[in-house]
Amino acid sequence: MQQTRLDTARIRAVHRVIDPMFLDTPLYRCEALEPELGCTVSIKLETANPVRSFKARGTELVASRLVDHGPQAAVCASAGNLGQALAWSGRGRDLDVTVVASRSATAAKLDRIRALDARLELVDGDHETARERAAAIARRDGIRLVEDSLDIETCEGAATIGLELVEAAPPFDAVLIALGGGALATGVGHVVKALAPGVEVICVQPRGAPAMTRSWHQRRVVTTDSTHTIADGVAGRRPIPAVLNDLLLVADDAVLVHEASITAAMRVLLDQAGLIVEPSAALGIAAILEDRDRFAGRHIVTIVCGSNVDMDAYHRWVGTAPVHGS
Amino acid sequence: MQQTRLDTARIRAVHRVIDPMFLDTPLYRCEALEPELGCTVSIKLETANPVRSFKARGTELVASRLVDHGPQAAVCASAGNLGQALAWSGRGRDLDVTVVASRSATAAKLDRIRALDARLELVDGDHETARERAAAIARRDGIRLVEDSLDIETCEGAATIGLELVEAAPPFDAVLIALGGGALATGVGHVVKALAPGVEVICVQPRGAPAMTRSWHQRRVVTTDSTHTIADGVAGRRPIPAVLNDLLLVADDAVLVHEASITAAMRVLLDQAGLIVEPSAALGIAAILEDRDRFAGRHIVTIVCGSNVDMDAYHRWVGTAPVHGS
Repeated sequence: MQQTRLDTARIRAVHRVIDPMFLDTPLYRCEALEPELGCTVSIKLETANPVRSFKARGTELVASRLVDHGPQAAVCASAGNLGQALAWSGRGRDLDVTVVASRSATAAKLDRIRALDARLELVDGDHETARERAAAIARRDGIRLVEDSLDIETCEGAATIGLELVEAAPPFDAVLIALGGGALATGVGHVVKALAPGVEVICVQPRGAPAMTRSWHQRRVVTTDSTHTIADGVAGRRPIPAVLNDLLLVADDAVLVHEASITAAMRVLLDQAGLIVEPSAALGIAAILEDRDRFAGRHIVTIVCGSNVDMDAYHRWVGTAPVHGS
Repeated sequence: MQQTRLDTARIRAVHRVIDPMFLDTPLYRCEALEPELGCTVSIKLETANPVRSFKARGTELVASRLVDHGPQAAVCASAGNLGQALAWSGRGRDLDVTVVASRSATAAKLDRIRALDARLELVDGDHETARERAAAIARRDGIRLVEDSLDIETCEGAATIGLELVEAAPPFDAVLIALGGGALATGVGHVVKALAPGVEVICVQPRGAPAMTRSWHQRRVVTTDSTHTIADGVAGRRPIPAVLNDLLLVADDAVLVHEASITAAMRVLLDQAGLIVEPSAALGIAAILEDRDRFAGRHIVTIVCGSNVDMDAYHRWVGTAPVHGS
């Protein structure tokens, strides 16, 4: 294939830099899901770690490289998971971390960022406003701006998931990947296309936040004015050109799913797999629910990429009601 | 220490026989739990695998040894998790598996046993009745009776969790282990006492199923007439003398917890850790909730040993109400 910004040998090397706590995550077939989905389904579970998402694979690289040059400071914009991961990776390394997030971000994510001793700055507006503010802080203070999906460490970190997938037996037919900024999709996609090119790489995004998917289909950056999705972790409006270029090289398809499919997928994962997931982590199952014929009889892997949710919202989404004061 | 029936070198060896899918499970600190619990808490998560409990570590050993002598048949009594695990381990090995369970066992567990192509025989009465029936089937058909906690494979399999715990850094101060028949407690306890003797081994059982805990305290087998607990996985009435002997050698304490503490612990794990667990898997957290002073400031590991629940019952226990038809 043509060259992405990623390099497989380098990804193998960084696998050794990341705290093992975030590596070699569970990968298992979940047969209880299969009657409803009509295909063989394996789950790559990225939630059983201190930050409950895959993002620390990337922030471990960012933080370890930064502190190789002495104590440092870094700032990132985040819907919550990157910020939490950077805070975690920075805390043990004397790295001064600032996270910029939308005031409307998931409260549970913001609480965890604060608990991890990071500086948290909230902005009015959405994730794109937070990105602008983080860039301004980096310029003002002369500190490292960590840009999700653009910074190669965030893609390389995510790509280590791909290494773990292609080393698995039995082989699978397709991998369904949540698509937001693109770090996860380009990282995993690069490794899969390099080492298991027969496996279909399918990106999944909400219809309410379709910028990157539209960009992929039109082969040029397409922005949107707003986003309307509960999948906060993938709700960007302005795709990064370099990331789109990589995505064009590694993705076989990019599909959009309805909000109702996302909540239905979250409910299926709860009822049949016993998994609490955040909306972005249910996108793969949502894609199967929307197009069972496409996946019928095939072996599909989906990456359950995060589980940071506000529980009240979660119960509302999946149709369970918390009984307060119980 | 005095000799248990287990051998550490042998446990290291069996670690290589078990399907890697069940090994090296996540072990991570869960800081979100800590404000409520008042101590440092790490979770050893045994639910992210095809049978959603630790039991396959043992059944992998049982099944692989059996089929070394050609196609075979086996029968076990089970509250559901051992049966599901034996069915899984047997299915891929041409092993004919029969599971005997109480008619009142958790429906989700029975459904999974059936789905894994095992023969399921339901009995009136409780788990002790199922044990008698399984023994009768084994005698009648001349097939292998798999007895949880008595059969050394079930203890050795569980003990591999102990190996993974003692190899972890940083070290911890105590491990909280669900106590039922005793395979998990004696297996993990043996390894911890052999390799990290300073770590306190604390077994936890429900007040409503206290036979093994009472036996441990009185240093002789104490039986009960009935059990009254939602923690179906640990609800035995007749401790096995050989297992009690081992438990006396490796456990530093055995404590009983109220049903309300079990459900409170399940709710804490749901709200703060995003984990669906079955009641037996919440016993460790329940023990902390009942005696925060004992654990204050220490680093505690608890083994989240299973997540097979009937979801309607689960919602009732943790105080969330499923909205049907949503």
